[in-house]
Amino acid sequence: MASIHCDVAVIGAGTAGMSAHRVAQRAGKKALLIEAGDYGTTCAREACMPSKLLIEAANRAHDVARAGAFGIEVPAGTRINAQAVLERVRSERDRFVGSVLDQIAGIPKELHLRARARFVGPNTLELDDGRTVEARAIVVAAGSSAWLPDSVKAVADRLMRSEDVFNLEQFPASLAIFGPGVVGLELGQALQRLGTRVSFFSPLAELGNVSDALIRDVVLDVLGESMAFRLDCARLEALPAADGGVCVRWCGPDGQAKEQHFERLLVTTGRRPAIAALGFEHTGLALADNGVPLFDHHTMQCGTSSIFLAGDVSGEHMVLHEAADEGRIAGDNAVRYPEVRGHLRRTPLSIVFTDPQMAVVGRRFVDLNPDQIEWGESSYDNQGRARIMGKNAGKVRVYASRETGCLLGAELFAPGAEHTAHLLAWAVQAKLSAFEALQKSFYHPVLEEGIRSALRNLSDRLHLTPDIANFGLRYGPGA
Amino acid sequence: MASIHCDVAVIGAGTAGMSAHRVAQRAGKKALLIEAGDYGTTCAREACMPSKLLIEAANRAHDVARAGAFGIEVPAGTRINAQAVLERVRSERDRFVGSVLDQIAGIPKELHLRARARFVGPNTLELDDGRTVEARAIVVAAGSSAWLPDSVKAVADRLMRSEDVFNLEQFPASLAIFGPGVVGLELGQALQRLGTRVSFFSPLAELGNVSDALIRDVVLDVLGESMAFRLDCARLEALPAADGGVCVRWCGPDGQAKEQHFERLLVTTGRRPAIAALGFEHTGLALADNGVPLFDHHTMQCGTSSIFLAGDVSGEHMVLHEAADEGRIAGDNAVRYPEVRGHLRRTPLSIVFTDPQMAVVGRRFVDLNPDQIEWGESSYDNQGRARIMGKNAGKVRVYASRETGCLLGAELFAPGAEHTAHLLAWAVQAKLSAFEALQKSFYHPVLEEGIRSALRNLSDRLHLTPDIANFGLRYGPGA
Repeated sequence: MASIHCDVAVIGAGTAGMSAHRVAQRAGKKALLIEAGDYGTTCAREACMPSKLLIEAANRAHDVARAGAFGIEVPAGTRINAQAVLERVRSERDRFVGSVLDQIAGIPKELHLRARARFVGPNTLELDDGRTVEARAIVVAAGSSAWLPDSVKAVADRLMRSEDVFNLEQFPASLAIFGPGVVGLELGQALQRLGTRVSFFSPLAELGNVSDALIRDVVLDVLGESMAFRLDCARLEALPAADGGVCVRWCGPDGQAKEQHFERLLVTTGRRPAIAALGFEHTGLALADNGVPLFDHHTMQCGTSSIFLAGDVSGEHMVLHEAADEGRIAGDNAVRYPEVRGHLRRTPLSIVFTDPQMAVVGRRFVDLNPDQIEWGESSYDNQGRARIMGKNAGKVRVYASRETGCLLGAELFAPGAEHTAHLLAWAVQAKLSAFEALQKSFYHPVLEEGIRSALRNLSDRLHLTPDIANFGLRYGPGA
Repeated sequence: MASIHCDVAVIGAGTAGMSAHRVAQRAGKKALLIEAGDYGTTCAREACMPSKLLIEAANRAHDVARAGAFGIEVPAGTRINAQAVLERVRSERDRFVGSVLDQIAGIPKELHLRARARFVGPNTLELDDGRTVEARAIVVAAGSSAWLPDSVKAVADRLMRSEDVFNLEQFPASLAIFGPGVVGLELGQALQRLGTRVSFFSPLAELGNVSDALIRDVVLDVLGESMAFRLDCARLEALPAADGGVCVRWCGPDGQAKEQHFERLLVTTGRRPAIAALGFEHTGLALADNGVPLFDHHTMQCGTSSIFLAGDVSGEHMVLHEAADEGRIAGDNAVRYPEVRGHLRRTPLSIVFTDPQMAVVGRRFVDLNPDQIEWGESSYDNQGRARIMGKNAGKVRVYASRETGCLLGAELFAPGAEHTAHLLAWAVQAKLSAFEALQKSFYHPVLEEGIRSALRNLSDRLHLTPDIANFGLRYGPGA
């Protein structure tokens, strides 16, 4: 069969792959984009976009149910029309996918290869249609796929993965969710607000994206009011029930065996790099324990090879904005190889769109050396603007280097965290101290004032606050 | 009568005065707080806090009415219970006022003077109870009061000022608002969403806080869908109507005389420094045209005197966070006089809590030299997250120095502007260029990506964007 020669071959036409391919193409290189599956990104097809659409509907339903507290009297009988909810989710999702397909359509046809690729040498890919690709450099942007634990093997025929939720026709009356991580919590709370009884199960204690137990405990308190959390489960397993549903068995921390029936099971136990069929073993690259080649975060280069990683396949971030960056970096260096250059990376930022929202900024608490940091915190339980909104629950903790005073990171579970986390991420990237961040503008009354309280607490604890800053009126009413 | 001697006398126990008094007291000075009126700040009693409470209820009503678009079917007959709406507004407002009163209660009784003060010399105040105060330094934090134009003189007995709205028992069926400024737009839209038919009247063309006509035009388009705007009116006047209501007469831009009847009139034509009875003419200070002494923005000192201004009385910002800062600065320098020191000020930030929200960051567009700046803009009409939320309307414009590339300011009319304006204010204060701001973290899908689009546009227009940044995939779907 034919052997195709090119400058840059990109495996995978998702966000990272499209980004890398575009860089190489614009640099005047012959760049091939190899994709076996459907076009359209994970983000648009099955993750960020449809989940935000479902969450929006769920939060509307929640707000309608609580409008009475604000003097807005809604007659009994509000109906959650699942078909209508999901129709909006799907039609808007398809519109977002359509915008991706338009980008794909802009790539000349001869640069697309519709095939599955695997390495047979460091510069050689074998396609499943028998052809071979020889490339000066190769960008691997093969994405990720859902990982299923052994505990759900017995119900493989009836479990849902996250993307299946958007293709439901009705919301289930009851739902077990294995994996209270980022996606599980988002979809779980959305479905709960749309009328489903939701229970989470996990052999671990973690929730969402936060690593600070003091934040996690507040998450459990607040979300635990409307959903059940079975954490630290032993011998967790899901079994088929006779009625087509699922029977979950587990041992709680008390050691007692328990069993509960659910209409459906949603498995959100995370995604893993989609590397199974890539043949990395034929590249000569050093591989990490998870089978992904060792790579440099700033160049995306694997060792000193002409192979570059981009996006979810690296197993590092699995968020869209990093995938787009990594595609750009990998594409740039694939073009420049062997003269690669490092690119500065952004401050890590991870957001869970629950209500309240969770966010992790910069270094995770668990990755910081407790002897080298100071923290500051504030509660949203009585924060002024949050109180006005009827959303006064949550907590924020910020971390700084004890030596330099610079902000290192933050973990949040608070209303509006998607916004305040951006402020904190920008402050971390600018290497501001808490005291410097406090010199910035804070309006009143805003949710950002809750962040200010945490920064003030941190600044005080570092003894960085000059007397004068403490002397004035620290806050307006309800800051 | 007795003459009272002290180190620092503070006229006015609002946000600025309390802040100044606290600084002086903590510095070990004998500091008197002189207040004739009720305690509690403008913010808590009649402005920021109750207006945000009313707006919250109004937005809930609005969201209930539009829930159907998300698949949440609310039966006909939603009732806006004005008593319940206003009861929550008042009880939460009173709680915020209570927190201010608690702060006041913490000040030793002998340091309060319940009297009206006027200057009889640069260091001497005469109180309306006949006593005299001799002070080494005096902080004037007398606040502001609503200003009423001649056009409403004939209906002085029946007009409402902003604070009267919170003490209503029913919302009027129809309302004329004189003054589509910050407060007028906030309260007007809130009342419109609570069932009132609202018409704005102004002899001017300005709306809210924005000065850029390209933003203002979008404000007019969007808010004009639900409220009437009679701008550039000639011969505008309000007259008493026989039924107890108000008859508004004006000439439109077409020169035709018009007349319309309203149940109530709300006058929100702005606030002026409350200086009438202060006797500044006895201080020997140079006065500006508006009667306020000339002062230094960084020291709050009037000339080289021992008199300092703080808060609304300066006529400068009239927002809480600046008042608190100015109290701190004035208090510090009253203590240190004559060795005053300058304090760095924050980037100006002004927010109007309409939907979409308006915000002005840094230098207003109208105050920038068009020959020296470059701009960037983006629309929210199809912004991804805004679309998901069903709030895709608005526009953002950012301004930078053509010479240095540094961001100077921004004007926004966009969903979530209260949050994104903070990001921009921090960026302006850090003297970032648009390109530098683009190196910061932006999650997906978020409203902040609309700001990124404007920054990207600005960066492109300044030719500051390196090729590589353009080469990669610029955005996720619907950014």
